[in-house]
Amino acid sequence: MEEIKRVEPRTLSGFMELLPQDQIKFNEIMQTIKETYELYGFLPQETPIVEASEVLLAKAGGETEKQIYSFQKGDKDLSLRFDLTVPLAKYVAQYYNELTFPYRRYQIGKVYRGERAQKGRYREFYQCDIDIIGDSKLSIINDAEIPSIIYTIFKKLNFGPFVIKINNRKILNGLFDELGISEKMSDILVIIDKLEKIGMDAVKEELLKLEISEDKIKRIEEFITITGTNDEKISKLENLNFKSEIFKEGLGELKQVVKYVREFKVEESSFTIDLTIARGLDYYTGTVYETNLVGYESIGSVCSGGRYENLAGYYTKKNLPGVGISIGLTRLFYNLKELGLLNSSKKSISKVQIITMGVELEKAVEVANILRENNIPNEIYMEDAKTKAKFSYANNLDIPYMIVIGEEEVEKNLYTLKDMTSGEQKMLSVDEIIEILK
Amino acid sequence: MEEIKRVEPRTLSGFMELLPQDQIKFNEIMQTIKETYELYGFLPQETPIVEASEVLLAKAGGETEKQIYSFQKGDKDLSLRFDLTVPLAKYVAQYYNELTFPYRRYQIGKVYRGERAQKGRYREFYQCDIDIIGDSKLSIINDAEIPSIIYTIFKKLNFGPFVIKINNRKILNGLFDELGISEKMSDILVIIDKLEKIGMDAVKEELLKLEISEDKIKRIEEFITITGTNDEKISKLENLNFKSEIFKEGLGELKQVVKYVREFKVEESSFTIDLTIARGLDYYTGTVYETNLVGYESIGSVCSGGRYENLAGYYTKKNLPGVGISIGLTRLFYNLKELGLLNSSKKSISKVQIITMGVELEKAVEVANILRENNIPNEIYMEDAKTKAKFSYANNLDIPYMIVIGEEEVEKNLYTLKDMTSGEQKMLSVDEIIEILK
Repeated sequence: MEEIKRVEPRTLSGFMELLPQDQIKFNEIMQTIKETYELYGFLPQETPIVEASEVLLAKAGGETEKQIYSFQKGDKDLSLRFDLTVPLAKYVAQYYNELTFPYRRYQIGKVYRGERAQKGRYREFYQCDIDIIGDSKLSIINDAEIPSIIYTIFKKLNFGPFVIKINNRKILNGLFDELGISEKMSDILVIIDKLEKIGMDAVKEELLKLEISEDKIKRIEEFITITGTNDEKISKLENLNFKSEIFKEGLGELKQVVKYVREFKVEESSFTIDLTIARGLDYYTGTVYETNLVGYESIGSVCSGGRYENLAGYYTKKNLPGVGISIGLTRLFYNLKELGLLNSSKKSISKVQIITMGVELEKAVEVANILRENNIPNEIYMEDAKTKAKFSYANNLDIPYMIVIGEEEVEKNLYTLKDMTSGEQKMLSVDEIIEILK
Repeated sequence: MEEIKRVEPRTLSGFMELLPQDQIKFNEIMQTIKETYELYGFLPQETPIVEASEVLLAKAGGETEKQIYSFQKGDKDLSLRFDLTVPLAKYVAQYYNELTFPYRRYQIGKVYRGERAQKGRYREFYQCDIDIIGDSKLSIINDAEIPSIIYTIFKKLNFGPFVIKINNRKILNGLFDELGISEKMSDILVIIDKLEKIGMDAVKEELLKLEISEDKIKRIEEFITITGTNDEKISKLENLNFKSEIFKEGLGELKQVVKYVREFKVEESSFTIDLTIARGLDYYTGTVYETNLVGYESIGSVCSGGRYENLAGYYTKKNLPGVGISIGLTRLFYNLKELGLLNSSKKSISKVQIITMGVELEKAVEVANILRENNIPNEIYMEDAKTKAKFSYANNLDIPYMIVIGEEEVEKNLYTLKDMTSGEQKMLSVDEIIEILK
């Protein structure tokens, strides 16, 4: 036997790799997300993970660019995609003439960011995105449909109560317009965005450093601490009587969104106007969303997004407004597992294992065939092993049923079906077994 | 408005990117493969696309290594996986103690090879793999189950007749053992593998160059041109009366496989013993498979694999024999499309589009909600547009039904359902509509 130089098998840090039981659960969650996206008629999209760096980085800069996995192959500069939005922009610009607008698409796929490895941060992670892209215009009602999709998904996933926070960037812009400090807006938004993390006092302190007058800071505070029900918040915003046009536009949009979110039957307890959320600073221009699991706000938003004025300005002159969201599935899964919020999941795909005792495998194959024709996932234990080993395989994988075939079964043309949970067993015909397993 | 430097949107050559209709079809095929794998109880597996080069290339060399996408990030040498077998070997070695054997898993995912770009060759492509890994031993019956899985998939996919070719490497090895030319075996196998491409005369010429006697070449020719039914081939192999132990072992295995392939109800016309196929030279050690679409043999095998003695020798001392197959889905899809073999596919996910005429969208939202509760994918046309535009959206996407809501419908609490194929339309209740669309 030749000498083999062995390498320690290992997985890179920041890359998720699951054991079968967790993988089954992970896939179930992904399937729920996908099915819901399809229930709303979104078309599937799949773009390459590798793109020309020049194309992928048309817009990027700063933090993002540093995190990107880039490399040379031949004479080409290539990069791994770092989100699904840039590929979407590229795709829509590239195939504009072949698409029907509004273009509703979902993409579920892996993206790559070379972030500093830390708990719950992944370098390879799934994003599950939907976007609706209009050709030069897109109705505000689309912005109300999005929360209903988030709502449907998290209801189905059943991880407990959640709340979808809704805001409109134009309202924030209008505030700064009204106060005459629009030029400081992006700095201020960065500070406001930290409100939950650092608290109001620290926010005020940071605002002071921007040389904003105490009077204006007070008005900002009043604004971002507006409380009450969704209707009360809207009415308080109206009562501000701001003259800013952009403010009025944002408030009008928010009212429309809230009205239609209710039409879409999103429970009042599952969505709230939150005037502090702003999301990406140079991207979103209207409605913005975040989603928190109630009681677990510290893990951050589990589904975010918003409305943007123009998706693909770096690739085309066409004006393509859109609205969309993204679920960071890998991180969500990690957090749910850490928090013990994952509902229990099965450890096997097979509903039944078929074993023989003292007879040939023919009969096992015969029943496996019939069960598969009836769409019942199953497997035959084929190894030459002691009965104990056969049972311990089924037990390890938590396979719910076992079919045992021995001489008596062959003679009578019946099968012993054992319920592995209750231990109960009966001799049955194939048809009876199908009835039980279906 | 700031000046934007635009980049031409484009996709790298060798990377598949589909329009929605093709993507829907692609996903349908993938779903059929996945569902069939699960019907046989295979567990899902997902490994990272990026791995440490040292781990991924533990075994590689020669052609493969040249094709690999490798790069540095920080102080790490990373590579994109080039198949799903090496990650499987790593995974099984790494998690050996947590897995139950035989470990049956499927993985469907993208792999990367920097091949010279040419028609039908992709640099990013899907592989759809299953493998059954035993702990130190694995019954030969597993080798018979694999063709039944291939059979089930290609029956369901319905691309026309196909044939699964089965051989056993030990029979080939036994031939060379018998002829006393084992040391030239791998060179000879490379030549035999080209039989279909270059023809028998060219094969004989190449064998002569290896300094094999004409007498032995004649016996090789007799062997690889054995014809007849599967049973006739087996009987001709038996009648050779070879003394080689390895030959006898291989023939015994092949007989078992053929016997059980029949038990698994694979039609006789869909599988054939083909003594010329050898597959990977330093990997497979027993049963080997290839699959051809009848009449389209030139596109090569669409599903191949085989039995290997030891999966993970580069990562662990454990002896892990296995058997598996891989479907190269991206290439298969490309070929089916080129050949016009793709069954027609839908262009939309939505079964119905809901539009309003002269009334608010509330009623549309109401019916969309109800249809979604009944698992009927649908979408509302929300844009403020002329009726013609609303119809042309549904026509472009080939959405099978449209629900029209105008004043009369609101008044009567009914909806007009239009069959977009026949043009027929009726005023119906929601329940009646659900009945039709389900």
